Amino acid sequence: MPSFVNKVKNTIKKYNLFSENDKVIVAVSGGADSVALLFLLFSLKEEYNLELFVAHFNHQIRGEEAEADVLFVRRIAQQLTLPFIVKKRDVPAYAKRRKLSLEEAARDLRYKFLEEAAKKKGATKIALGHNKDDQIETVLMRLLRGGGSQGLGGMSPKRIIANGANIVRPLIETSRKEILDFLKQKKIKFREDSSNRETVYLRNRVRHRLLPYLERYNPRIGQILFNTAENLREENEYLEEIAKKAFSQVSQPPTTFSKGSRQGRKVVGGKKVILSLNKLTRFHLAIQKRLLRLAIKEAKGDTRQIAYQHWQSLNGLINKNKKNLFLDLPQLRIQKEYDRIVFVKAGKGKRR
Amino acid sequence: MPSFVNKVKNTIKKYNLFSENDKVIVAVSGGADSVALLFLLFSLKEEYNLELFVAHFNHQIRGEEAEADVLFVRRIAQQLTLPFIVKKRDVPAYAKRRKLSLEEAARDLRYKFLEEAAKKKGATKIALGHNKDDQIETVLMRLLRGGGSQGLGGMSPKRIIANGANIVRPLIETSRKEILDFLKQKKIKFREDSSNRETVYLRNRVRHRLLPYLERYNPRIGQILFNTAENLREENEYLEEIAKKAFSQVSQPPTTFSKGSRQGRKVVGGKKVILSLNKLTRFHLAIQKRLLRLAIKEAKGDTRQIAYQHWQSLNGLINKNKKNLFLDLPQLRIQKEYDRIVFVKAGKGKRR
Repeated sequence: MPSFVNKVKNTIKKYNLFSENDKVIVAVSGGADSVALLFLLFSLKEEYNLELFVAHFNHQIRGEEAEADVLFVRRIAQQLTLPFIVKKRDVPAYAKRRKLSLEEAARDLRYKFLEEAAKKKGATKIALGHNKDDQIETVLMRLLRGGGSQGLGGMSPKRIIANGANIVRPLIETSRKEILDFLKQKKIKFREDSSNRETVYLRNRVRHRLLPYLERYNPRIGQILFNTAENLREENEYLEEIAKKAFSQVSQPPTTFSKGSRQGRKVVGGKKVILSLNKLTRFHLAIQKRLLRLAIKEAKGDTRQIAYQHWQSLNGLINKNKKNLFLDLPQLRIQKEYDRIVFVKAGKGKRR
Repeated sequence: MPSFVNKVKNTIKKYNLFSENDKVIVAVSGGADSVALLFLLFSLKEEYNLELFVAHFNHQIRGEEAEADVLFVRRIAQQLTLPFIVKKRDVPAYAKRRKLSLEEAARDLRYKFLEEAAKKKGATKIALGHNKDDQIETVLMRLLRGGGSQGLGGMSPKRIIANGANIVRPLIETSRKEILDFLKQKKIKFREDSSNRETVYLRNRVRHRLLPYLERYNPRIGQILFNTAENLREENEYLEEIAKKAFSQVSQPPTTFSKGSRQGRKVVGGKKVILSLNKLTRFHLAIQKRLLRLAIKEAKGDTRQIAYQHWQSLNGLINKNKKNLFLDLPQLRIQKEYDRIVFVKAGKGKRR
């Protein structure tokens, strides 16, 4: 089915997903998407001069099935004579320990494994099998949960991660149906991803109920959400670029900060981020918000648990005419001292 | 109910909706929202030093009821000793003539009337009664129809229109329930807006079916859509500022263009907009798209009928390596001539 392959090639070109001589970790669960991705990349191996590794994460969520998945993917790797990397982690135990949902835990450990594999093999890319339908569902879930304008862009076709390797999603513009047709046509076997179907409850409701319901309002809703996400992602990328440049103008160089306490609240070791209020407020509100976000991220490590009402309070702190104020947010203390706003990690600092 | 008044005062302050000595055209249909708006502004008249005019548009969609609306609003104006402006237009006939839906026709004529009234009275503001629920419904409708990132910001709390007057929406952050509670508490009467309830079919489905359905996924969905819109509106405003500045760098001064034909297609009199391809492509994709949009708007007068696939074709024209190409879109001819992209209004140019 040349149209499928061409479509993926267009995506690869559009987002510049691969360069010559890329070493690629292909994440293969054994399900339709990742198996199609692997065979597709294998067929493009010569053309793009890629070195491929098959990586499989054994999540141990359902014992026997998980073992059968390992065998299945190993066999494909052998068949294609590609190196096979596998890692077993006890996801349910990790989830319990970290108080995460099974889904979050599996996601965390899977990405960690892929990053480690990339590092070990000196890989430049990690290829994931997410398709267009996954993207639409993701956008809709983020809309329901309040993902902000960052979240509404959905999953990025290409994203740089810590080690300098890139996450790439070559199937992000092809539909689930196109992928299944390709597999059928090529007589390629895959395994039903039972964990995916059962653990990801919200996604399934979105897929099987909400989307068909919204199609009654507009049969093209999926495509519309997809296009909207693309536009928002582009704009978000541009705004982040601007904010990052602005951040170095607005912030003082970060200083490390030893443990101690400030006005009765424990502050834990970490970066102390200082912004100039005068400089901050010279920027457009849209950029100001992003600068505050970057400051929180730098001080606290992430922006988890910071919700809409916290942003409101932070806004209040900035706009109040008092010269000395402080605000305690989850794991974070923010102090206004004349022209400075100081962000320090605080409280129970155990979660990363 | 002081909390309602304070809430509206916060909105007025946040968006700087009024200045001292503003002359305000208050659009009053007779329905709950606009009646509450009028009484509220009347109570703030001294504090903000406002001069108020009650403006009522008689849409003649349902004969007798429309006449009763006129009488009702006139009586309120008399009671408050405010000047009353009324205009009667045959909306159904206008809709038929222009091939518009009743809703579109009523909207067009209503805004035209308000702008004329503002001009005649030298008013600086036109106040509309849209509330928070209207805003949420609008965002959702635009999401369903594919409004792009502009549309998803919803209605603006403050927007400059042609004559230099501003449209302001002081109730945009208060809910329908808060408005009804205020009216009840103050024993203020209003008329059920039957036209609103019956002609605006999609809005009603969104209000009575889609939103309650989405609340099953997240009971806070309304507030989430509202917050998301606020963020997107802010970002959109900032991006438009940047694009408008960039436009003067990328475009040649517009020249007027007489009627004639080019390669067999009629071009009609209007502005000819010329962009430099080199300069255009130096900008980030997010800004490029907005520059093209501005060019189309300038040449054609609006961006109506230009849909997603047209943007795709335009993108193709820009990225193709050929030096001479042209593209015909609805009411628009776009030509690439070496480094120039020329936009000219074309075809049946009757619709404005």
